[in-house]
Amino acid sequence: MNILVTLDRRYLLPLRVMLTSLLMNQPGETVHLYLAADDLTEEDVLSLERLCAPHGACIHPLAIQDDWFEHAPTVRYYSRAMYYRLLAAQMLPETLDRVLYLDPDMLILQPLHDLYNTEMGDHLYAACIHKGLVDLSTPVNKIRLSTYENEGYFNSGMLLMNLPEIRRHVRPEDIFDYVERNRQLLLLPDQDVLNGLYGERILPLDETLYNYDARHFREYLIASQGVCDLDWVMRHTAILHFCGKRKPWLRAYSGRFAPLYKHYMSIAERTP
Amino acid sequence: MNILVTLDRRYLLPLRVMLTSLLMNQPGETVHLYLAADDLTEEDVLSLERLCAPHGACIHPLAIQDDWFEHAPTVRYYSRAMYYRLLAAQMLPETLDRVLYLDPDMLILQPLHDLYNTEMGDHLYAACIHKGLVDLSTPVNKIRLSTYENEGYFNSGMLLMNLPEIRRHVRPEDIFDYVERNRQLLLLPDQDVLNGLYGERILPLDETLYNYDARHFREYLIASQGVCDLDWVMRHTAILHFCGKRKPWLRAYSGRFAPLYKHYMSIAERTP
Repeated sequence: MNILVTLDRRYLLPLRVMLTSLLMNQPGETVHLYLAADDLTEEDVLSLERLCAPHGACIHPLAIQDDWFEHAPTVRYYSRAMYYRLLAAQMLPETLDRVLYLDPDMLILQPLHDLYNTEMGDHLYAACIHKGLVDLSTPVNKIRLSTYENEGYFNSGMLLMNLPEIRRHVRPEDIFDYVERNRQLLLLPDQDVLNGLYGERILPLDETLYNYDARHFREYLIASQGVCDLDWVMRHTAILHFCGKRKPWLRAYSGRFAPLYKHYMSIAERTP
Repeated sequence: MNILVTLDRRYLLPLRVMLTSLLMNQPGETVHLYLAADDLTEEDVLSLERLCAPHGACIHPLAIQDDWFEHAPTVRYYSRAMYYRLLAAQMLPETLDRVLYLDPDMLILQPLHDLYNTEMGDHLYAACIHKGLVDLSTPVNKIRLSTYENEGYFNSGMLLMNLPEIRRHVRPEDIFDYVERNRQLLLLPDQDVLNGLYGERILPLDETLYNYDARHFREYLIASQGVCDLDWVMRHTAILHFCGKRKPWLRAYSGRFAPLYKHYMSIAERTP
């Protein structure tokens, strides 16, 4: 199972927590972790290796070439790292045909085997729409990015990639072009580009399984007419996503899933 | 590390959850699990073996001899299993010098190495007093069991046993005698006997570390003047005890630590 993460050093702690939860819940699976990062030190990589080794997982830091970004426009305070998940196919070995991108602000609570082996046909990506937020954000996003044709706005925190199709259809110059033309409209550049350029070629997956917004337990419960209660969530939800500004690694965080997050944080901290 | 559990079949699910959390949080430790039970089927034992095998843990079902209980008085609806933790030294191999008894309604969240290696001197047991409940229950317990000399009433859910000392001082006939004489006063027979007969020879340990009552987060937080907040608990508490009638494996349970419990329950369920 190939996993892609892109991060900067400020997210090293949550990355370690996410990886701990990932590895502890994939028994019998060999995980290959591809790491796209600019500023990781050798010690950072070693610390990730210590985390992965007991689970038989391998780390593959990716070489990122400056000339790929020669013509890349920048957006406000975002670094070029905002392009990494969009350019995954350029960065990953050509032998790979599938990779699962995961944000660091997540917990992985179940085996990802079924997700990883989703039949993708000629879709470029598989991802989830956060419908819980549709009423608030979608009309704005639809106007902003002219994605009237799509049923919603995909969250790019979990992104399953069909690499052969992406290599055929996703061109860096299209992405840079799109960013250049829409610079003023981009709130979350990578996610906006993904939806704006490729929204119609993304296979929608069930967000309660694979990109559950940890802030919205009550909304999911109501929308599912009581099906998605806590027992259901803890039995079925594979990816819990701590979206928004209040992050679970902060001391003040006390959301419903805080004990679960902080438990995995403590396990991650045991391996220095 | 020798672990003792005593159970009946109705507690097989929670036992599997407790063991899952125990084994996942003892990396590098070989766990020997001693099982005192009357009504486990061969299939039950096999299912526990499947749970233990991936962690390199071994199961040792204990032979329980009927004649040990010839003179044992019965108390209300309790079965003879109420005596098992009190008679642990009789049941366990003579070569063992230490064992940690654990109730099934617990989660083990940290390595137990420090607890297990507690210096016990000539104490028979090490256990925790639930001080959070002292104001409510201790005066009653003290009158009931005449343990005025003790500082409190030990919870017997976590019981570290100094087996050589126990073999020298704990006699089954004393226990049966005590039960016979106090039959009308015993609410929780095993725990009451332990406190009544051996309370002065129990080494008190910190309940926030080793027998944290999951119902009393706010009480611990206040009593510790804010030290035992959620971050502290998830970093330090090794044994979380779901005391009381509302049990976390029931669908209706929604206490603060419910997501954590139900996550481990889901992991336990993955191994049939």
